[in-house]
Amino acid sequence: MADSKPLLSLDWDPVAAEALLRDVFGIVVDEVVWKGTRATEKVCEWKEPEELKQLLDLELRSQGESQKQILERCQAVIRYSVKTCHPRFFNQLFSGLDPHALAGRIVTESLNTSQYTYEIAPVFVLMEEEVLKKLRALVGWSSGDGVFCPGGSISNMYAVNLARYQRYPDCKQRGLRALPPLALFTTNECHYSIKKGAAFLGLGTDSVRVVMADERGKMIPEDLERQISLAEAEGVVPFLVSATSGTTVLGAFDPLEAIADVCQHHGLWLHVDAAWGGSVLLSQTHRHLLDGIQRADSVAWNPHKLLTAGLQCSALLLRDTTNLLKRCHGSQASYLFQQDKFYDVALDTGDKVVQCGRRVDCLKLWLMWKAQGGQGLERRVDQAFALAGYLVEEMKKREGFELVMEVAPVLKERMVKEGSMMIGYQPHGTRGNFFRMIVANPALTQADLDFLLDELERLGQDL
Amino acid sequence: MADSKPLLSLDWDPVAAEALLRDVFGIVVDEVVWKGTRATEKVCEWKEPEELKQLLDLELRSQGESQKQILERCQAVIRYSVKTCHPRFFNQLFSGLDPHALAGRIVTESLNTSQYTYEIAPVFVLMEEEVLKKLRALVGWSSGDGVFCPGGSISNMYAVNLARYQRYPDCKQRGLRALPPLALFTTNECHYSIKKGAAFLGLGTDSVRVVMADERGKMIPEDLERQISLAEAEGVVPFLVSATSGTTVLGAFDPLEAIADVCQHHGLWLHVDAAWGGSVLLSQTHRHLLDGIQRADSVAWNPHKLLTAGLQCSALLLRDTTNLLKRCHGSQASYLFQQDKFYDVALDTGDKVVQCGRRVDCLKLWLMWKAQGGQGLERRVDQAFALAGYLVEEMKKREGFELVMEVAPVLKERMVKEGSMMIGYQPHGTRGNFFRMIVANPALTQADLDFLLDELERLGQDL
Repeated sequence: MADSKPLLSLDWDPVAAEALLRDVFGIVVDEVVWKGTRATEKVCEWKEPEELKQLLDLELRSQGESQKQILERCQAVIRYSVKTCHPRFFNQLFSGLDPHALAGRIVTESLNTSQYTYEIAPVFVLMEEEVLKKLRALVGWSSGDGVFCPGGSISNMYAVNLARYQRYPDCKQRGLRALPPLALFTTNECHYSIKKGAAFLGLGTDSVRVVMADERGKMIPEDLERQISLAEAEGVVPFLVSATSGTTVLGAFDPLEAIADVCQHHGLWLHVDAAWGGSVLLSQTHRHLLDGIQRADSVAWNPHKLLTAGLQCSALLLRDTTNLLKRCHGSQASYLFQQDKFYDVALDTGDKVVQCGRRVDCLKLWLMWKAQGGQGLERRVDQAFALAGYLVEEMKKREGFELVMEVAPVLKERMVKEGSMMIGYQPHGTRGNFFRMIVANPALTQADLDFLLDELERLGQDL
Repeated sequence: MADSKPLLSLDWDPVAAEALLRDVFGIVVDEVVWKGTRATEKVCEWKEPEELKQLLDLELRSQGESQKQILERCQAVIRYSVKTCHPRFFNQLFSGLDPHALAGRIVTESLNTSQYTYEIAPVFVLMEEEVLKKLRALVGWSSGDGVFCPGGSISNMYAVNLARYQRYPDCKQRGLRALPPLALFTTNECHYSIKKGAAFLGLGTDSVRVVMADERGKMIPEDLERQISLAEAEGVVPFLVSATSGTTVLGAFDPLEAIADVCQHHGLWLHVDAAWGGSVLLSQTHRHLLDGIQRADSVAWNPHKLLTAGLQCSALLLRDTTNLLKRCHGSQASYLFQQDKFYDVALDTGDKVVQCGRRVDCLKLWLMWKAQGGQGLERRVDQAFALAGYLVEEMKKREGFELVMEVAPVLKERMVKEGSMMIGYQPHGTRGNFFRMIVANPALTQADLDFLLDELERLGQDL
């Protein structure tokens, strides 16, 4: 970029930078860490979209604003944002605030680097490998590969792409038209990213064959066997089964041993979408729910969910030791992955992914793990199971909860407009709308669950 | 998750959380904001991988650690990380530290929400739309669509997927096998994500047809015309041209008007990868480099590069007004995108993407823009051009710089091990290794560029 204009003076002012950052940090501590986590405060400050637009004054203009205005803007952003760290936020598979993970995120943001080379991310290249090794060890693998992805959907997509590449390496160069028609198998309880991924990867949603699940939402291995035979009879080549450990709506764990037997028999890639349930591997008491996961070829696991690492932290783990990830995704860009570097270029992990720049997602999890230890994280998982058990028992004692569930959309509107709590609802099969209760926040207590039940009764008492 | 274990006490302690966060924030201010940006400090503290592993003690154990240990760990992470905010970090297309953008990132991390629904991200759903509208206006569109993606590679991939879906909507369900063979067109100067994307999307890298570039790296429109005819003669269906505004190595701007003429003539989707060059649209003086961009169907633009918004901030902008993004990527998951909500569900933008959870990437850019104004950002772009011009003139005055370039890997090793500066190198066509100088940091001065030239001479004086 060449030009003859005079040079301007835009000098860096660390005093002003520090002052701004200190003020904003102070607002975060007051409004999020303290107020946002306090049960007596609202979970959300509901505004209709048009009103909120006015309140926020979102328009971007030519003129800059004063420091005072900027601080007011930060306050407004926080005021009208949902407090996902609040003890009555049950709405998503993530909730709560881990201070060590948040500290890791702040350090990550300040260092602002990309995960692709040892050259510019020496600490994080080594750290990512260590964290992945630990997650693999919990799966039951002493070797393997992996990478952090921008969310579980992309982790799942990677697994599908790797499976088809392993079977048909030609696909990378020649595309799907050079291959026979392919099929992958999962249940209707799986996450919607499996179908989205099939479309995005060019396979088409028709390539996803639905295997029956039982009434608890678990895949029926006998039906998997049947669906594979049906596909083969149609001249379609089965190549992957996606099992789920912790389904999105019912929280079901597919029977991995039986599914692995089927995969082994037919030579199919076994992917386990453990985005939600993977963290259960930390619990000696409950990890049996994932028995057989060590037989998988790939596992997707999101520590930003049950472990509260912060969005996003999604690991794709592989049993492969043949550098499949780099062979499948690599393109050897000469400006980034020079082969004449003065260090071992195997450390440049950027060519394992289809991204170029890639955020650092390992530090927040690593720092939290260092602080809590595996034992501390295990206690959190056990606590979530204990609280879920408590809630089930308490619900059985109360009348009317079946009834309440049929009016979920009305109750939802009332709770959000009051800001008292947030919980998600959806229909399922022949059942109408019901609430999906998530116990993910490590700060939850029995009292929060009692509140949940009382509040649902109160909100619905006239219905 | 049900169990009969007794409930544990893992109560939230805001006092401890505040103390930890204040200490870590203090380290960030001292070590990154002050020391990391000081020219007299090292850009990096080079360690061999094995030694760094020892220094960091990366292993994750069962036992947790004390607050004091955790703070030491944060210090070590920062000490051995590359300071991408340093005035002598010329290594990547991002560099520098904008305090408002960093403030926005800290607020984003504290709020920890996902961009998919108005329900849980009311502020950010509206803010993303406003920021995208502003970026579209700079492209020259008064309407359209768009979304923030996890990096430019995925933005480019989205464009390719949208183009094929628009032409063959069947592809989503039936896959590429139901379509004729397809071809897209770009030059060898394009970013490597175009080929990676073609492989990932199932098209195969063979579907990418290479158009000749001139000696400055710009696409030759006459050759584009020729390549399209060649593909058609082979029975392949052309569907997309990917032009580049600001190529990765040479910084070239493809002639968009002439390319748009060709696309219009053949009915092809015109995608502009303006990940690097898009920010030039802010400059009245230099935006002519992108003349014709308003005729594109899609534009990828990364404000985390020249605008210093922070990794990642990558916008995919679309001229489309027919909801193509949602039709192409949507799957109407009933647990997230319920249609019986109490607000306008058109605000639930999550079904526009192939991700499920999606980070909030708009606040950092919005807050920086509010503080700087469009004028302030324009000055930054003009400053980058002015500094680049200054550097070119100064280099012409010095002997030996052609020679120096042939020993780039040696100079690179020396500068990194001393920690004095960082600049990337690569070969290009028949030319050997040369340094690629990036002027992206708004805090750069003439003195920093004088240092660069002096330092290259010093490092290479014995060669």
